[in-house]
Amino acid sequence: MVRKTFLLSGIAGLMISAGADGAKKPSIGPLPDKPPEPKDNPTTPVKVELGKLLYFDPRLSGDGSVSCATCHDPNQGWAKKRVMSPAYPENKHFRHSPTVLNVAFNTLMFWDGRVKTLEEQAEKPIASPFEMNMNYDLLEERLKAIPEYRKLFKKAFPNEREPITIKNIAKAIAAFERTIVCNDSPFDKYMRGDSNAMDELQIKGMKLFVGKAGCVQCHNGPNFTDNKFHVTGVPKSRVEDQPLVAATRNFVLRQAGFRNPERIDRDLGRFFLTGNKKDKGSFKTPTLRNVALTPPYMHNGVFKTLEEVVDFYDKGGGKVPNKDRRLKPLNLTDEEKEALVAFLEALTCENVPYVEEPELPPYEGETKVKKGGR
Amino acid sequence: MVRKTFLLSGIAGLMISAGADGAKKPSIGPLPDKPPEPKDNPTTPVKVELGKLLYFDPRLSGDGSVSCATCHDPNQGWAKKRVMSPAYPENKHFRHSPTVLNVAFNTLMFWDGRVKTLEEQAEKPIASPFEMNMNYDLLEERLKAIPEYRKLFKKAFPNEREPITIKNIAKAIAAFERTIVCNDSPFDKYMRGDSNAMDELQIKGMKLFVGKAGCVQCHNGPNFTDNKFHVTGVPKSRVEDQPLVAATRNFVLRQAGFRNPERIDRDLGRFFLTGNKKDKGSFKTPTLRNVALTPPYMHNGVFKTLEEVVDFYDKGGGKVPNKDRRLKPLNLTDEEKEALVAFLEALTCENVPYVEEPELPPYEGETKVKKGGR
Repeated sequence: MVRKTFLLSGIAGLMISAGADGAKKPSIGPLPDKPPEPKDNPTTPVKVELGKLLYFDPRLSGDGSVSCATCHDPNQGWAKKRVMSPAYPENKHFRHSPTVLNVAFNTLMFWDGRVKTLEEQAEKPIASPFEMNMNYDLLEERLKAIPEYRKLFKKAFPNEREPITIKNIAKAIAAFERTIVCNDSPFDKYMRGDSNAMDELQIKGMKLFVGKAGCVQCHNGPNFTDNKFHVTGVPKSRVEDQPLVAATRNFVLRQAGFRNPERIDRDLGRFFLTGNKKDKGSFKTPTLRNVALTPPYMHNGVFKTLEEVVDFYDKGGGKVPNKDRRLKPLNLTDEEKEALVAFLEALTCENVPYVEEPELPPYEGETKVKKGGR
Repeated sequence: MVRKTFLLSGIAGLMISAGADGAKKPSIGPLPDKPPEPKDNPTTPVKVELGKLLYFDPRLSGDGSVSCATCHDPNQGWAKKRVMSPAYPENKHFRHSPTVLNVAFNTLMFWDGRVKTLEEQAEKPIASPFEMNMNYDLLEERLKAIPEYRKLFKKAFPNEREPITIKNIAKAIAAFERTIVCNDSPFDKYMRGDSNAMDELQIKGMKLFVGKAGCVQCHNGPNFTDNKFHVTGVPKSRVEDQPLVAATRNFVLRQAGFRNPERIDRDLGRFFLTGNKKDKGSFKTPTLRNVALTPPYMHNGVFKTLEEVVDFYDKGGGKVPNKDRRLKPLNLTDEEKEALVAFLEALTCENVPYVEEPELPPYEGETKVKKGGR
């Protein structure tokens, strides 16, 4: 019966839409095998190998203690099971870590969507004082002091006289991240024709997802995100009142030109970037793929479980600045909620990509890499 | 006999000059009790108290691990007994730590003299990626999260609505540094009339200092520095070839606009700042007061002992870019060299200011300060 709702789609061949009438409605479907890649950064094996080393290398941070993997951890669904993301030592982060899994299919990066490509994304946290706190020029000089990197950058970017640049660091990391994809979840298998891949409860949940519950309105497309921004009134996390979390938020606000950051006591998302009132509390729709692997949830990690998230939307979301934009309550039964959660769990890959922390190349004249920067 | 060479001087009342003919020659003399202070930063007890806390507070650095005292250590003559200064974790410094003792009497700061006041000096290493690696705005927000600092800044800068600013951080540290002075060395006492304060060898050394050895040509004034730049051809330290030392030097050169920093294999001092050929290998004359407390010597810590320094100048210094500017050999006897070293040792204060690391104020909601930032 569900099969009858299959629609051919330009994106992924098989899609299930919000309605069964064939009109253009938001739809979900299996993920393609490979994410798109930009023309100026083709994914090559040597670039991926280099990107993998860089992804795990804490020397990309100021004091040599934070790598990409610190906050996007292969052991934690390529995200981090903490309310707020880890931060650079002596700091606290003010947002929860999103996953790197399948991020290569997204067209907006960060919770506030401030950039559109993985390449642009990869370089931002390196320079952020509360994330990796590293100066790009100093980083380039530091990596030049590592013979293996000199060799690998030369191989990965063969036509450049001096290939160790922040742009190429970001390109290599992005190329590596394009390999951190998976599309063998029960849902994917089901969509490709294996009708036993999801159980009855999960199928019921899928129907609710695209139907009564309306999740598909925002969580659509093969990666379960519309790559747009929405205000859903996620409640404040108590953590947001912690002095150092507030300090980081105030800092971000000051960098964006806000005069009195201390008047704002929570994360208002895209508003911090644009200053537009309509963006107050607006965040990018996150992917739901592998969501069961990456608790807690929301930009501020305020919900511990998927059940809490479903309950939140069942009640019509939270308070929003413009009352007319408040979501409608869904009036789901307990069984319907259970089904939705079961469906969300069916979005977990069978073979989640795992990459073991590689042995990192030492500085010239040294035989191994010291742990920690002190 | 030496007494006959006393000259009245506007600077310190009693001065001993290079000659005894009363003409204006470079001279040395006792240090005044108090260093000058700028009109816009009067030294007040509360400001000094605040500056003391800030001086010892590693939270002024990005990862909370480096304070002013890390490189200018009260236990090490307010300098550091290492060839190169300590650096921010994962980095190596490319210059030796100068002392903070009596620095308040100087009119040029840093080995390259890039600024003229203690206030300007204090804020530079905070932002330097290989020194304290901290963003000023984030630092201000971090300190605002510490109730005791909120209170102290308010007291120290009572007329400002928001006194926790990088400018006031620097002012408080400078005010504290103006208290790290001493003028009770055997030399000072001798100059003030206690003819037994220096022994015969030291007196002989003093005569050589202002006479045959010519040290006074550059090391003059009450703080034994002309606050000018000179090229003396200090040899390269082997440490300067270490990959991470070179990385830091290359970084500094790149920040100054040099295109091919890797072509320069040593520290060329003020040239790195100005790019002027005449400044190649030019460094500020350091104070000699308390010099016995602060080995090793020179901008690159290349000499372990005062004997090595005296030997270096005895041989006419090192190779300099313009041969005509090479110093002349001094042809000192072994006993004369010994006397010079004895005189340098007579510049050590009897009561070197010592300040114990204070207990630092905790963040709001915490009861004590965690050691280290991780």
